[in-house]
Amino acid sequence: MRSGTVRARRGCPGGIHIEDGMTFDELKRRAAAMPGVIPFGGGLPSPLQFPRAALQDSFARVLAEPGAPALQYGWPEGFETLRERLADDMRRRGVPVEAGDLIVTSGAQQAIAIAADFLCARTGAEVGVEAESYPAALALFRAHDAVPSPISDTNSACYVMPAVDNPHGRGLDGEGRRRLLELSRPIIEDDAYADLRFDGATPRPLAAEAPERVWYVGTFSKTLCPGLRVGWLVPPRQHLEAARRLKQDGDLQASGLGQAMVADYLQHNDFGARLRALRVFYARRAERLATELARQLPGWQLTAPDGGFSLWLLPDAPFDELELLAAAVERAVTFDPGSSFRRDRAPYPGALRLSYSLVDETLFEEGVARLASAWQSVGHRRPAVSAQTGAGA
Amino acid sequence: MRSGTVRARRGCPGGIHIEDGMTFDELKRRAAAMPGVIPFGGGLPSPLQFPRAALQDSFARVLAEPGAPALQYGWPEGFETLRERLADDMRRRGVPVEAGDLIVTSGAQQAIAIAADFLCARTGAEVGVEAESYPAALALFRAHDAVPSPISDTNSACYVMPAVDNPHGRGLDGEGRRRLLELSRPIIEDDAYADLRFDGATPRPLAAEAPERVWYVGTFSKTLCPGLRVGWLVPPRQHLEAARRLKQDGDLQASGLGQAMVADYLQHNDFGARLRALRVFYARRAERLATELARQLPGWQLTAPDGGFSLWLLPDAPFDELELLAAAVERAVTFDPGSSFRRDRAPYPGALRLSYSLVDETLFEEGVARLASAWQSVGHRRPAVSAQTGAGA
Repeated sequence: MRSGTVRARRGCPGGIHIEDGMTFDELKRRAAAMPGVIPFGGGLPSPLQFPRAALQDSFARVLAEPGAPALQYGWPEGFETLRERLADDMRRRGVPVEAGDLIVTSGAQQAIAIAADFLCARTGAEVGVEAESYPAALALFRAHDAVPSPISDTNSACYVMPAVDNPHGRGLDGEGRRRLLELSRPIIEDDAYADLRFDGATPRPLAAEAPERVWYVGTFSKTLCPGLRVGWLVPPRQHLEAARRLKQDGDLQASGLGQAMVADYLQHNDFGARLRALRVFYARRAERLATELARQLPGWQLTAPDGGFSLWLLPDAPFDELELLAAAVERAVTFDPGSSFRRDRAPYPGALRLSYSLVDETLFEEGVARLASAWQSVGHRRPAVSAQTGAGA
Repeated sequence: MRSGTVRARRGCPGGIHIEDGMTFDELKRRAAAMPGVIPFGGGLPSPLQFPRAALQDSFARVLAEPGAPALQYGWPEGFETLRERLADDMRRRGVPVEAGDLIVTSGAQQAIAIAADFLCARTGAEVGVEAESYPAALALFRAHDAVPSPISDTNSACYVMPAVDNPHGRGLDGEGRRRLLELSRPIIEDDAYADLRFDGATPRPLAAEAPERVWYVGTFSKTLCPGLRVGWLVPPRQHLEAARRLKQDGDLQASGLGQAMVADYLQHNDFGARLRALRVFYARRAERLATELARQLPGWQLTAPDGGFSLWLLPDAPFDELELLAAAVERAVTFDPGSSFRRDRAPYPGALRLSYSLVDETLFEEGVARLASAWQSVGHRRPAVSAQTGAGA
């Protein structure tokens, strides 16, 4: 079978037509357009948690401001009130920053992209990452002709999510933090899920320990809404002005409307209470999906996450990722194949990321049943014995 | 005098403290924070023209959509409904595009940045531009180690604003278009002000003539509001997929909220009527500011603009730009120094860009009087004779 494409022409039992030669991306796009699909793929936040009423109030207030700065051009580094609030919050977590040290970015991705522009300048630069990591960051490093590599003291830089990582949903322990810092390499610290640790123990950022070489990346995409596109970057101070210029060259400024609404939202609402509610909400979904998987696919290995949006699963038999994804999409359920997270793109050992964040809990049983049916149809062919005896298949 | 910084310590007559060593950027930032400043610098649209009520309606509608896609993650290329509308509009202007050929970007700047990533890959690449051009594009090309150069057939690419250029506010005539196209070089066509030609004769884009090598850039920043950060790019079709990947690597997607609101606004409002009203509004401001300048600074050379937000002025005596800007800021008025638009950064022949777009007409007389006073204080020192006899000084 050709890697990365579907081999055989298939029917369209789930309302989707799957053709020879389709890629992961094409399958995902077709699936996204399907009515009734259960999307364990994608890692999107729950729209039930978008604070629509509060955002409506914020919108009305920011539009009423004289001159409507939310709608106007602003400075490349972002709105002062927002930066002051972010700096306050970071100081409380031990990071020695002022508003002037922060650049508001068009989401976390742009913050990572600015850091990568500095740290991956040399073709073939090694960027140290865990064996599995955030696909959009890996794609970015590869686009810079850098090589995602094991974390070591030969890295040009490391990219890590020490509070809660993607895709495993796990935090780095004290020993892991110590070893990472001892390498003394520049670090891109992606803190996207830090506020969504289920235990509420938001850890001290690495930027608090080594501000001279940590590029800190934050975002409101997981805790408020991604569509506002508001993230931020704290570069090492010696690179601040150059990072600000890169931001300006890239897109002039982050969305004024997004920035003004986030700043207003934070001023008029109890964000801490919101975070507590989000942790309860997502922890419950994590637990329920894990329970359903253990019931229907008991052989699959699962480690309980510390936080975030997703579970990382290791099935109990080898399988072809694309074949399984095609079978899943035919049954109107999606997942993210393990290889998309791998620094070396390896499809083996076979793994899946399932996100519990977007899917309504009432659909977990049906979603896992569809997945188990897909698994039965392709995954359990090898070894044949286990296909006959698999409990949930 | 050291280039780019203010020589002498000054007082703060206009409420602003101007120090030795201040740069253009620092002066502009201080001035922006001054109460009562008359900002002819900056090129911002008038907030009087932000359609606040209609945007409030759009916001309510997009928030009410099931799943609130405006607040959620979306595809990197942007919202389908918006792309379909943009493609419709472009086809009417003669450009053979479908929605699938368009990438929604985080403002025009990101569209130019994506094009520059392709076209300025070689260090020292010549990018052909007019003698004066858009500063943020020039900065971007320089950041790519490209050299803004005269337009010729040795350029790696050309960057032009053929409908209405910045800073002159002039359109390219038929002969200019013909010569440009005959060079057969890749072209970045920045069409930011095309809908704001005062005669309403929105020209046929260059992308209609040579779609295989024109990177077309559009934006709603001038015609709706910059704070939404919604622009678009039509790359040559053979580069579409690679441009989409660059967009995704850069910031995943343009603001979902901005995209959804623009799409909804266009669906529920008469955008053509809005454009007609904007042309009348800005044409009147252009004419009134020109009249006031002719009255108070009659020696300054001015060419009436075809459209846009600004006038380009050539004073009748040599002057030091930064000294004049400092004197202006002391009098609570700003302008943009000519050198910031120059491909070779030359401050001579001395020039200024004055934007009429943001300033209320009732302040034009006072604003020009402050500028004339600044001019008298520094500009007319050389030649001494004209300083004594200058009519408006």
